[in-house]
This record gives sequence, structure tokens and C-alpha cells, in this order.
Amino acid sequence: MSTKWVYSFNYKRTEGNREMKNLLGGKGANLAEMSSLGLPVPPGFTVSTDACLDYEKNNSISDVIKEQVKEALLEVEKVSGKKFGDDANPLLFSVRSGARVSMPGMMDTVLNLGMNEKSVQGLAELTNNERFAWDSYRRFIQMYANVVMEFNISLLESTLEDLKEARGCHLDTELTAQDWKDLVSVYKKIIVEETGQRFPEDPYEQLWLAIEAVFKSWNNPRAIKYREINDIDHHWGTAVNVQSMVFGNMGDDCATGVCFTRDPSTGDKKFFGEYLINAQGEDVVAGIRTPAPINDDSKNISNKEMKTLEEAMPKTFGELVEVYQKLEAHYKDMQDIEFTIEKDKLFILQTRNGKRTAAAAIKIAVDLVEENILTKEEALLRIDPEDINQLLHPRLDPDAEKTLLASGLPASPGAASGEICFTSEAANMKAENGAKVILVRQETSPEDISGMVASEGILTARGGMTSHAAVVARGMGKPCVAGCSELSINSGAGILKVAGKEFKEGDPITINGATGEVFEGIIPTIAASIDDKFEKFMSWADECRKLEIRTNADNPEDAQVALKFGAKGIGLCRTEHMFFEPERILAVREMIFANTETDRRLALEKLLPYQKEDFIGIFKAMDNLPVNIRLLDPPLHEFLPHTNDEKAELAGSLDITLEEINQRQERLHEFNPMLGHRGCRLGVTYPEIYMMQVRAIVEAAIESKNAGITVKPEIMIPLISEAKELEFLREKTIELINTIFEEKGSSIDYKVGTMIELPRAAITAAEVAKSADFFSFGTNDLTQTTYGLSRDDSGKFLPEYQNRAIYPKDPFVALDQSGVGFLVDFAVKEGKKTNSSMHTGICGEHGGEPSSIDFCHKIGLDYVSCSPYRVPIARLSAAQAALRD
Amino acid sequence: MSTKWVYSFNYKRTEGNREMKNLLGGKGANLAEMSSLGLPVPPGFTVSTDACLDYEKNNSISDVIKEQVKEALLEVEKVSGKKFGDDANPLLFSVRSGARVSMPGMMDTVLNLGMNEKSVQGLAELTNNERFAWDSYRRFIQMYANVVMEFNISLLESTLEDLKEARGCHLDTELTAQDWKDLVSVYKKIIVEETGQRFPEDPYEQLWLAIEAVFKSWNNPRAIKYREINDIDHHWGTAVNVQSMVFGNMGDDCATGVCFTRDPSTGDKKFFGEYLINAQGEDVVAGIRTPAPINDDSKNISNKEMKTLEEAMPKTFGELVEVYQKLEAHYKDMQDIEFTIEKDKLFILQTRNGKRTAAAAIKIAVDLVEENILTKEEALLRIDPEDINQLLHPRLDPDAEKTLLASGLPASPGAASGEICFTSEAANMKAENGAKVILVRQETSPEDISGMVASEGILTARGGMTSHAAVVARGMGKPCVAGCSELSINSGAGILKVAGKEFKEGDPITINGATGEVFEGIIPTIAASIDDKFEKFMSWADECRKLEIRTNADNPEDAQVALKFGAKGIGLCRTEHMFFEPERILAVREMIFANTETDRRLALEKLLPYQKEDFIGIFKAMDNLPVNIRLLDPPLHEFLPHTNDEKAELAGSLDITLEEINQRQERLHEFNPMLGHRGCRLGVTYPEIYMMQVRAIVEAAIESKNAGITVKPEIMIPLISEAKELEFLREKTIELINTIFEEKGSSIDYKVGTMIELPRAAITAAEVAKSADFFSFGTNDLTQTTYGLSRDDSGKFLPEYQNRAIYPKDPFVALDQSGVGFLVDFAVKEGKKTNSSMHTGICGEHGGEPSSIDFCHKIGLDYVSCSPYRVPIARLSAAQAALRD
Repeated sequence: MSTKWVYSFNYKRTEGNREMKNLLGGKGANLAEMSSLGLPVPPGFTVSTDACLDYEKNNSISDVIKEQVKEALLEVEKVSGKKFGDDANPLLFSVRSGARVSMPGMMDTVLNLGMNEKSVQGLAELTNNERFAWDSYRRFIQMYANVVMEFNISLLESTLEDLKEARGCHLDTELTAQDWKDLVSVYKKIIVEETGQRFPEDPYEQLWLAIEAVFKSWNNPRAIKYREINDIDHHWGTAVNVQSMVFGNMGDDCATGVCFTRDPSTGDKKFFGEYLINAQGEDVVAGIRTPAPINDDSKNISNKEMKTLEEAMPKTFGELVEVYQKLEAHYKDMQDIEFTIEKDKLFILQTRNGKRTAAAAIKIAVDLVEENILTKEEALLRIDPEDINQLLHPRLDPDAEKTLLASGLPASPGAASGEICFTSEAANMKAENGAKVILVRQETSPEDISGMVASEGILTARGGMTSHAAVVARGMGKPCVAGCSELSINSGAGILKVAGKEFKEGDPITINGATGEVFEGIIPTIAASIDDKFEKFMSWADECRKLEIRTNADNPEDAQVALKFGAKGIGLCRTEHMFFEPERILAVREMIFANTETDRRLALEKLLPYQKEDFIGIFKAMDNLPVNIRLLDPPLHEFLPHTNDEKAELAGSLDITLEEINQRQERLHEFNPMLGHRGCRLGVTYPEIYMMQVRAIVEAAIESKNAGITVKPEIMIPLISEAKELEFLREKTIELINTIFEEKGSSIDYKVGTMIELPRAAITAAEVAKSADFFSFGTNDLTQTTYGLSRDDSGKFLPEYQNRAIYPKDPFVALDQSGVGFLVDFAVKEGKKTNSSMHTGICGEHGGEPSSIDFCHKIGLDYVSCSPYRVPIARLSAAQAALRD
Repeated sequence: MSTKWVYSFNYKRTEGNREMKNLLGGKGANLAEMSSLGLPVPPGFTVSTDACLDYEKNNSISDVIKEQVKEALLEVEKVSGKKFGDDANPLLFSVRSGARVSMPGMMDTVLNLGMNEKSVQGLAELTNNERFAWDSYRRFIQMYANVVMEFNISLLESTLEDLKEARGCHLDTELTAQDWKDLVSVYKKIIVEETGQRFPEDPYEQLWLAIEAVFKSWNNPRAIKYREINDIDHHWGTAVNVQSMVFGNMGDDCATGVCFTRDPSTGDKKFFGEYLINAQGEDVVAGIRTPAPINDDSKNISNKEMKTLEEAMPKTFGELVEVYQKLEAHYKDMQDIEFTIEKDKLFILQTRNGKRTAAAAIKIAVDLVEENILTKEEALLRIDPEDINQLLHPRLDPDAEKTLLASGLPASPGAASGEICFTSEAANMKAENGAKVILVRQETSPEDISGMVASEGILTARGGMTSHAAVVARGMGKPCVAGCSELSINSGAGILKVAGKEFKEGDPITINGATGEVFEGIIPTIAASIDDKFEKFMSWADECRKLEIRTNADNPEDAQVALKFGAKGIGLCRTEHMFFEPERILAVREMIFANTETDRRLALEKLLPYQKEDFIGIFKAMDNLPVNIRLLDPPLHEFLPHTNDEKAELAGSLDITLEEINQRQERLHEFNPMLGHRGCRLGVTYPEIYMMQVRAIVEAAIESKNAGITVKPEIMIPLISEAKELEFLREKTIELINTIFEEKGSSIDYKVGTMIELPRAAITAAEVAKSADFFSFGTNDLTQTTYGLSRDDSGKFLPEYQNRAIYPKDPFVALDQSGVGFLVDFAVKEGKKTNSSMHTGICGEHGGEPSSIDFCHKIGLDYVSCSPYRVPIARLSAAQAALRD
């Protein structure tokens, strides 16, 4: 049996369903599903993602595929009673991409396909609207030339502008049928002149090239960039949906719109959407005209005066309400529905699980559980843990002084301040130099993705809640204020005028994506507040998860934040950060420059009280919870003075010359500090440093215990490559602790373990585990050594690696399971062979990344530890891992 | 049954044998074996190495051990008819260390133990020689004070010097019995005054403390240092041999000596040795008096006038000949025998397999096979592959002009030039700064080991062929001229006077260890020549080994040397070295600074002809043998200009400012170059660089083929961390090669494979192997990343690690089998799962190190590749690995 490449959907016969996303793409599968549900879906067919891969392989659409497309097309002709390219009753198609997951704005689309000199006549007669017919033909040519012929359409656009100028009119709607007809001729002439190719008249030729263009668009740079940002596999391919056209722009009895079954910003259970009378679907999302609300619930400050769909077309609105209720009940999730009304008849073009803010996602999930539509477990699996990120960002200090400049749409929640940038390039450049920036644009387009990534927040002058800027910003969890029409932006001159003031590139502004407000200058923020729904949702996560969640915190303040976010202990407390504080750094430097152990001990004695104080604060914050403290890790040269003032101070304190300081600094230089004299290597060569730290920890623990705190210190020895290092240092540590116990006449429980962050430690874990009460996987360094890849230097070529799909993901972001993960898994198994009671966890950046947490759960670690703000993400990820198991 | 700690040996009953080296030490096992053979061995007993470990653990000699020692001692009293501490017929003992392997000069020894105020009288009466008795007592006190009481004996020595001065005599022999008696009193008084302890009279007290001192000496710094240099396990411990004393210094009918059953320098089958009349054994090896030859065969320029033992004591010499023949037949190897003649009676104190030069070792092994004493396989296993090293060093150019300064003993073959250093400290310092040095000493002692390691060669004014300097230098394979009495050395003033000339520290000299000659200045050397015995021996090795032996060679000259040493191909040809030649480096830099791919290609085109030329030379040298060429590996910044002249030249050539050069150089800086933008990462980001190299290789191969050469190129892509890197570059490589084949209308066979030098490549080998015709393990970098240890930076703490026995061996010298080796083994097994025909080898420094080669054989690699001079070592190591298997 030959492969099936094409799947029909129409009210008589539908071959696909929602389960077939991989083959038909999300859009294709949903069109099929909706069609099966008996919803008013314009008939069509889907060319599968496999056909895309086949195209990529052969660089052409195979004859078999073409044959199947023709058959499906004839079926559409039959059910619709129209004919492709006909001069009487022409069948027109939209050709759209549709990948396994939604990639908004990424894929090129062609509408009105099938128009030519013959069918334009047919359309004119059929609709009794010559102007509409020629406008549609004009639109088709423009879009087709752009997408399929890869023609720079600014030439066409400027011809249109010239024409409007000549006619003395501002709006397209002021042009006549003859104007459009003339323009079609001019367009065709320009295309022949510029490309040497005539514009195709044969509708099938149009179709083949359009399908091919969609296939090709899978690998356009914007699409690749989007996939990289969103961790989408480059090898999935896209399906092509060929669907008969319906027109929202045939007159004032026509409309097009987008609606959500619940509010995508808040999650409130209210029908919510926007529409445009006499428009094509692209007009709504392009953000060129500000759309009207579909009902009162959808009104906001910028559209509240406009007529709702409910008012304008009450009957059709009623049908739409029926449809949305059917769809939400069917999909058991909030739906994002695209509809078109052609001469008062409703058509549903698309439905999908709606993108939403994290707050809305949580609220919807919790509501659906409370409405008995979902189970708790289903609800937990519904939320992408990364989305929680946006809930946890700080918001504007309500008490801070603010100068309001303007208000736009609250397109993506959260507050952000930064320097104004008018272009993505500028945003990228400034951000690379460490500046925080706000991208300020008329509207954004897919070309702006990288600039949006680089920015703290996005502010646009045009576009609605479903505009590109709004959708993408919500996806990124970045604050966005959209459609702020009060702004007057001259990006060429680099000037923003608003509220009678003028701002230049680099001037600071603040946006509040939750309210749509724009403020002058930088406004202080306060930590995110978490609502009841969130707490309830997270408590469900905690019931399900098997992994403990700890945090990486170096001071009592961070520990407090993490506790509030649900951390159950500290997985990594880095002691070196404590060394940098101004009153200590001189003693640290004296210690480094000491010539003898005696001098080193003298300097260390000065540090002891500070370290002790640090630990007392942390034990207090983490009462009755484990606190894992890593002994000094970085190479000593990291603490050396950089400025001449600092060097002079040190020289004075040590009574040596500046020259000598420089010479010694020279001697401490390392070619590869990452692989140098650091971690336990410092402990082995200068045991007195580690012993000062151990003393500080244990004395702090005993004092805390005496103050009524329950202390659970874990002493972590870093950078073990050989079991004997740990054996040696563990012995010394325990010896000292016993001495302190005697000195103080008191004792505490404690653990001594190690960080597994070098391949050899993982490989020889069975030996290492004999001296370890715990293994904490330092996957940052383990990734560096397993890959032979310096995190500090890889920036120069890692982007190229991701562009070429050589590294599917940045291994510093998502744990590389087949390499680094292999070592972690191996070490756990080997370690438990010789020490079955050993506790295991992970404390690299990966400890807060969902796919990595899933892996940690699978291989049976006891805990993950991550930065405070990622603790809730880790809690949910851990729950999902347990549920999937 | 309680543990047996003590083993007796005497002519009635012997409990040990030669197989018990681990327990009794080499010396103890041999004393037992000789005793069993009925040889005249002074009776005694051995306290086992286990007892040493027991002592280390408890820090005292246990009562059980003491009990067993007492029993054994009573047995010696019985068979000898003497009594310990007796005033009539006193039994005296030597107490010597004896580890599993010989550690010459490392362990402290006590002689004449059992002497006190009573037994000195007994000895005087028994020998009728009061002077001898008190001299012996004096020697005992001195030695015992030094070794057991850890007393600085310079105070005692200066008292002796003062006495001689007061008596107006120069030699000890001029002192009278009363003098010695007086000295004994003075010695005892000094000891009490200085240490607060009286000198022990009780012979048992003497014995316990002496045994303890031997146990302790296992961990003295000299012993530890020796073990580190010789890769001896620190956990073996030493046995203690307590043996009744015989005296070579009772008068002129007494003697002591050392003999070899064959010539240890040449391997010639002749009895060879040295002796001293009226001396104790220590006097021979200490090199204080120049000893006499035992027979005519043992004569050399400095002793040819002296009376041989054969002449002086013909009967005893005859007995010695019988003994040596018996011993060599029994042990089937050249023996190093210590003997003492006490009043014309021969005693054998020790025999062991004699240390020998590498040339002698080979000759003896081959001779023993030809004498039907050994099989070829036994002979192959007899030679330590590392010893071959000394055969392969260059020798002095016979045609060079030379100014002979003096002649000494040819103590260890090979020629060396360097700056004069009079102390080990100076030698170490100069060597660390990169200078080549010759250590020039009156005589060497164990304290000089580190200075000898640091030196190219050793020159001494005193001592014979079996002196410390000679024995140790032969062991190290370093040239040595010993006993060069024409030298007048004032090391305090830093002056050497010889042949009427004066030399200061730092002046250059040359020694020829094969002839004993010392020359002024630096003399050119030529490559080692290899003799027939060696060729025959190595041909046996080649018959046995399974591993192919290749070489690392970057140019035709190195390839030639390696071919001569038996290499069967190139395992690693590093192309980057070719880039540094003056006429090319500018083009390399232009390439690096190019802003566009086009500019980069222009610069690369300039390099192409050079690279091609390189490869043509190498293919020619390696006709019909595989040549594995690694594409560019180091980060580009390694090629950047350092001097301002070079920078100015580059700026001119690129038409940019010096400022820009510096800025761009800054941008190329890396924090961890080892983990940076290098290896295949360059190939992925700038494929044009690798493609230039591929073109050069393939065009060179085709031209060589056309010139009648059989080419077998292997293209190696380095630093793979992910299979897709290799897949991408392999595809590009093959594509280009096919293009070249078409251009040239000719083709060649080739392989494309990769270097496995990152842990992730090893872990994911199954995937990587799909795109690899071969795996070559780059164990240098694999060691760096597996350990997280930079070779360039580890020098600061690696010595400390070895001192503390944390790393048993330097992992850059001997392959770490449990960590790095695990990855190599794993990668081979995984790789062959997906690509069973894959060829595997190793090309790190480890490829020439015997224990690493053994490992490579065990895990089934196809080849090892090493530097040209190590090829014979690798051939033998591979044969031994196969034989042991």
C-alpha cells in the first residue's frame, strides 16, 4: 500500500482527528477534529508533515503527493459545488502552514489562491462586488509574490501608496474597482520586469508553488530562530492546510475575529475576543487596525467605544457562543478560536488551546478542576512549568512615585524598566553590553524576535491583545504593553514623543504589562505576590512529587525568598561569595599572599568570625531544614585585586612593594582556571583554609543549636576527581569537628559529602561514595568537562552550533541526558553499590529546568536544588515527572 | 594459628624461599633461597613486610613479633655457637632493610649490632685484635646514633677529625686501639649531652630500636622520592633482615666486594667485580675508596694497576667462581652478588638480579636464549621496556672537534652536554628554567636523587662502577662518568679545576658515559645506533605483539627516525605545527583576521601549496603505511603575533591599524582555551579551513600516487563532543574529496575518523562511530577533561598530590585506567556495537608508556602511536602485554 500523504476534511468526510498532530500539524488535526464535530469549517485538506520531510529530502514534491492533492481538491470541488480557477463559481484556497506545535507568525501563508484573470471575473459576478474581487486578486498577487516568488514587495506597496496619493485618498477602502484592476496589471508588469517570470495564471501551478513555499518556510531563519528559543525539534517539518476561502472582507455583513473561551490574561471565565468588520483574518493579528471587542466582557480602555460583535451581529454571535462552548467542553481547555463571517454566515477557521499568561493558566487549571472538568493530575500536567516564571517576577512598587506617560493594552503581565531601544539591533547591542532595555516599536514582526529576547519588556504603538507583540511576549513571559496609540515613534530619528515630552534612544522608561501603563524613568519593583489559586495549585504539585526541592542560596535573604517559594532546604550555599564583601576581601588577599602556613592561618583567623556570622544567619533562616555548604571552590586568583588602589592597600597591609604584588599575581595566573588549582585541590594543598570554614560552620551550628534552632548542616567538598582526595579531607574534617565538639562540650548532627562535577568522580563513584554521605551533582562544571566546553568561551560558537542543529539544545540550559546525564545516572548507581544510604541531588542551573528535573526524577535522585525564583517551577516539574512516571 | 612474622635462614633450617619476595623482601627471599642452596650465608632471620605494615598501623612492634624475633635469635645463637651480647663469644648482627624491589641506598642499615662494653671485650679476645674490636664498636655507635637515634653525626665525625689532627695522621688506619676506645667514651658522652639519652648497652634494646628504625625508614623522604620516581607502591612496606655479622675488616686476610656474573655495562659474558681488602661492605658502594678488580676481566683505566682478588686470594676466588656459576644457573639471570671474606672464609651476603645498562640487558637476554637457558618469551619479559630508552639516546658525533678534559669510569652509557651544577638544588633550579645541566659531585648520595633526575648526566670524582652515582644513573638511563679522580671540585666556591683549566657553575661540559670521557663545551650528538642483538630481540617482540605500533610525527624527518625504530605508520600528524613556519604564519594570521568567508578563503589559498608540500613529504616517507592526519586543532589565538614587529607586519598586510590588531586579538582571548573554540569547533564554524586541509591532503595523496607511492591517508577530525559534529564534517569532507577526484580524474583510498578526547565523545561512542572509520584516543586531552585538570596548570599542586599519595601516578604519564581508561574501554565497546569494522588506537603520550600499552592491549585496541624515540619501547611493551595475556 502506498503512503497516504493527504487527508481530507469536510462536512461529509473527514480523515484526520486531533490525535494526529504529528502528521497533520496542530492546525490540520484541529480542522479535522472540528470538522468531525460538525462545526462550520470551510472544507479542505491537509498535506502531511511527512510530505514536508519528503520534500526536504528530494527537494521537490513527488508525483504521488501531487496525485493525492488533486484527488482531495476534486473532493472539495464536489462538496462545495465550486470549481478551482473557474470563471463562474471559482473555488479559492488559503494555503497555510501548520506544525506539530503552534509557531505564531513564523510560517508564511497564502490566501485567495486560485485567482486569475478568469476567476476574478467569476468572483466579481458571484459576489456582485467587482471591487472586492479585484482587491482580493490584488492581495493574492502581493502575498503570493512575497511568499512564493520571494519578491521584495515594497515595490508593489509603494506603487499602491503612489496610487493612493494620486487619488488623494488615505485608506485602501477609498480606492475603486478600476483602481484595483489597474493595480493588478501594474503589479504583474513589475513582477515580470523584476523577476523575469510571469505571474502564474494556472491555479494548479499556483498551488504547487505555494505548497512548496510552505515547506520551504519551515527552514526560514525566523522559523529556525523561533524553534531554537522554544526548544522545538528542527526535524518535525510542517504540514500544509489547503482550505477553501471564506471572506470576511466582502462587505459590512462580513467580519473576521479571534476569540478566547476564557480571558487569556487573567483566566477569568468569560468569553473574550476581538473582531474587525469587513476584513481578512490577517488584519486582526497584524495589529494594523485596532479591532473591536466581541462583547462587553472584551472591552478595554482603547476599544470600549467600539460596537461589539454581539451588538453588530447578534444572531451570528449566538452561533459563535454555541461553538465556543462546544469546543471548550470537547477539548477540556481554554480555546483560541479564529472565525470569519461571510455574508452573515459563521465559519470556524481554527481552534487551539489558547496561549495565556501564567496566572491565567493556573487559574484556568484550578477552575477546571473545581468545575469537575479536569482531575488535579490532569491540571498539573496542563501547565508548562517554565510559564510559572512570569508569575514570580517583581512588580512595580505601588508606593513609588510615578510619572504616567500613556496607557496601552495590558498585553503581558509583569513590570520592566530599561533604556529605550527603537530597533532589535540596538536592543541586542545594548543588552550585550549589560544594559536593560525596553524595545519600543510601532508594532513587532517576527524579525523582532531576537530584539524581544534581549529586552526586559516590549512597548508597541499599534496592535491588539492578539497582536504579534502580545502573543510572543506572553510566550516569553516578558512584560508587554501593546497598542499604546498615544505614542508617536520616529524610529529613524530615534525619537519617541509622548505626553508632550521627547525621549531619545537610551532614555529610561518603565512599563507595567499587567495594567498597560507606561511611566517615565526607572521605577522600583517589589517581589511577586502569589495568589490563592497559585498556592492551591502548588500544593497539588507538592502532593504528587517525589523529589525534594531545595534552593541555591548564599545568604539569609535569598534563603528567605526561596522558603516563601516552597524550598525545603539549601542544596548549595557557595561560601566564596561571602569572601568578596569589602571588610573581608583584604584578609582573603592576605591569606592568598601568605608565604607560610603560619601567616595563612593568621589571615584565616580574621575571616573566621565573618564566616561564622554568615552561617548563623543561614541556619536561622533554614530552621529544621538541611543546609548544604560548599567549601571554597574558585581558584585563589579570582580574589586578587584589580585596581591599583586595591593593590596599594594590599601592599601596605603586607608590607611589600606594588611590584611584588604584581609578580605574585603573575605567578598565580592560570592558563585554564576552570581546570586549575581550585575546589578540593585548594583543600588538599592548604588544608587550613578548609578547616577554617569547617570550624565556622560547626561553631555556628552549635551556637544556633544553643539558640533553639534545629541545624542540619551538610559539608560539601567540591571538585573531587579521585576518591582519595575526599577520603583525606573527610578525615581531616571529622577530626576537627570532634575537636570542636570537645571544646564546646556540645555536638550536632552533620553530613560530609561531595560535589560530583568531574567525569572521573562520576566514573569512580563506587570508590568516592565510600567517603560520602551525599553526592550533589554540579552539572554546570560536569557539562563543561564532559563536553570540553568552557561556559565563558562557548558563546563564540554555540549559536552556530544551534543554528546547524549540532547541539539540539544549549547543554548549559537543559541537561544533556545522553552524555552528562549518563554520568549522573552511572554515578548514582555505582555510588549506591558501596553506600546504599547515600543521599543524592543536583545543584547546577539544571536543577530548575523542567526537562532536567524530569531526568533527575527518572534516575532516582533525592532532590533538586535551584535558584529561589525557580523553586516553584521545580516543584511543578517534579510533580509532572512523578505523574508521567 | 597466630600469624608468622619472622622467618629463619641458616644452614640447618630455612623457612623462606625466592617466591616470598612480597613477604620477605627481595633481599630476605634471596638470603633464604641462597641458604637453601647450601651457599655460605651467615645465619639470620627476616622480619616480614607484614610486620612493617603492622608497625605502621600500631606505631609499635607488637609483643607477638618480639617473641618470634627472640626465638629466631636463639636459633642463630645455637647454630653459630655465639651468644648475643656475650663477653666471650659475642654474636653481632647486621640489621638491614629489604623491600619487595631493590631500592639501592634508600634504606638505612645498622651493622655490628650487639656491641657494648662487654661484647667489645669478647670480640677483642676472640679476634685477638683489640683495635678492630674498638673500631667496630665505634662504627656501630656512629651508625646507630645516626640511623636509630636520628642524631646528627657530624659532631661525632668532627671529633674523629680532631683526634686525627691531634695525632697528626690522615687515615683511620693510623689510629690505635686506645684511640678508638677513647673515642667510644667521647662519642657516648656527646650523645648523652646532646640527646639526653644514654647510648643503649642492652643488645635487645639495640635490636628493637634498630628494627623500628628500618620500619620507619620506609617512609623517609629519600625512600618516598625513590618510590615516586620508580613507580613503587608506597603501601608495600619493607622487611628487616637480621643476619649475623661477618667482617671483611678484621685484617688483610679479610675483604669485601661486589661482583656481577656478567658485565653490567656491556652484557658480555664475563665475571666482573670489585673488592676492597680489609673493609666493610659499605665501603665499596660508598665510593670513598676506589676498589680493586676481582679479576683481569674487571680491570679498567683507574684500577688496572691494582692487585686482583684472583691474585690476592686465589683459593677463595675459586670458591667465589663456583658460587656465582651456581647462582646464575639457579636464577637464570645475571646476578649482582655481595660477598665478604672473613679470615679467608667466603661468605655470601646477598644476591639479586643485577642492574644493568639497557644494552647489557638486551645482550644478556639474547645470550641466555642462545645458551638455551631462557625461551624467547622469557627473555622478552625480562627487559623493562623503559630501559630501552637509554639505547635510543643520541651519542657524540665522532667527527666533532673535542677538547678532552679528563677520563673517569664509563658508569652509565650515553652522551650528555649541559651547564655545570655543583649541587642538586642548583641543578633543579636551572633545569626548571629550561637549562640542560650536568651534575658534578665528589660523589653522590641518596640526597642527590632529585638533582640527578633534573640533570642530563652525572659526573663524579670518586666511586667505582657500583657506586651510588653509577647504579642510580644506570637505573635512570642517564649518562654517568664516575670516579674521575683528575677532577678537583670545590663545590663551596663553585669551582671545578681540571686539565689546568678552571670552570664555574653554568659553564658547559659534555660527558660520554660509554667511554668515561669528559669534554669541554657542548659537543654535537648523532642519533643512537642500534646493534644486531637489539634488532634480533626486537624482532622477537614483533613476532609476539598483537598491537600495531605507529608514531606521532609532524614532518618527514621525524617519520624517518620512527621508521628506523620500527614504526608501521603515523598515528598522529599534527598539522598546526606546519602553520608556524615563517613563510606561512602571515597567511595564517590573515586568515584569522579575515572578516568574511571570502577573505578567509583568499588567505587559505596561500596556505594550500605549503600544506600540500608537507603531506607529499610525509606520504613519501611512509610509503605503503597509514598516515593519520589530524585537522587543525588549537584555538586560532595561538597563531597570533606577539611582538610589535609581527603585529606591524600583519597590520600592513591587512591594511588596518595596530590598534585594530590589538582589539581583535583581545576579542579572540579565551578564559579556558583548552575548553574553547578549537578542534572541530573551528571546522564547524569555518568549514573552509578544514576543507583547505582536506584538499591539501587529497591532492598530495593523488600526486604521490602518480609518483608511484602507495598512500594510505586517514583524515582525523579532532575534539568531537557530539556525533553530529562529525557527521557534518565527514559529509563535507567526503563531498570535497569526490569533487577533487573528479577534478583530477583519479582517486585514492582514504579513511575519515575522529579523535576521542572528550568524555562525551567516549560516552556517546555508539552514535559517533556511525560516522567514523576509526577512533584514535587522544588521552592527553581526555585525561585533562576527565580529571578536570589542566596540564599547564597542574604543576602547582600535582607534586603535593603525589607526596600525599592521592594520585598514585601522574595521570599524564601513566594512563589512569580506572577513570580515563574506563572511558576508552567503554568507547571501544560502544563504538563497535554500531561499527564493528572500526579501527581503534591511541595517540596520546600514553601510547609510549608500558603500563598504558598493556592496558591498550587488554581492551583490544588495534594500535598505539608514540613519539619516534619511544617506538621500540612500545614494541616491547606490546609484546609483553601479549605474552602476559
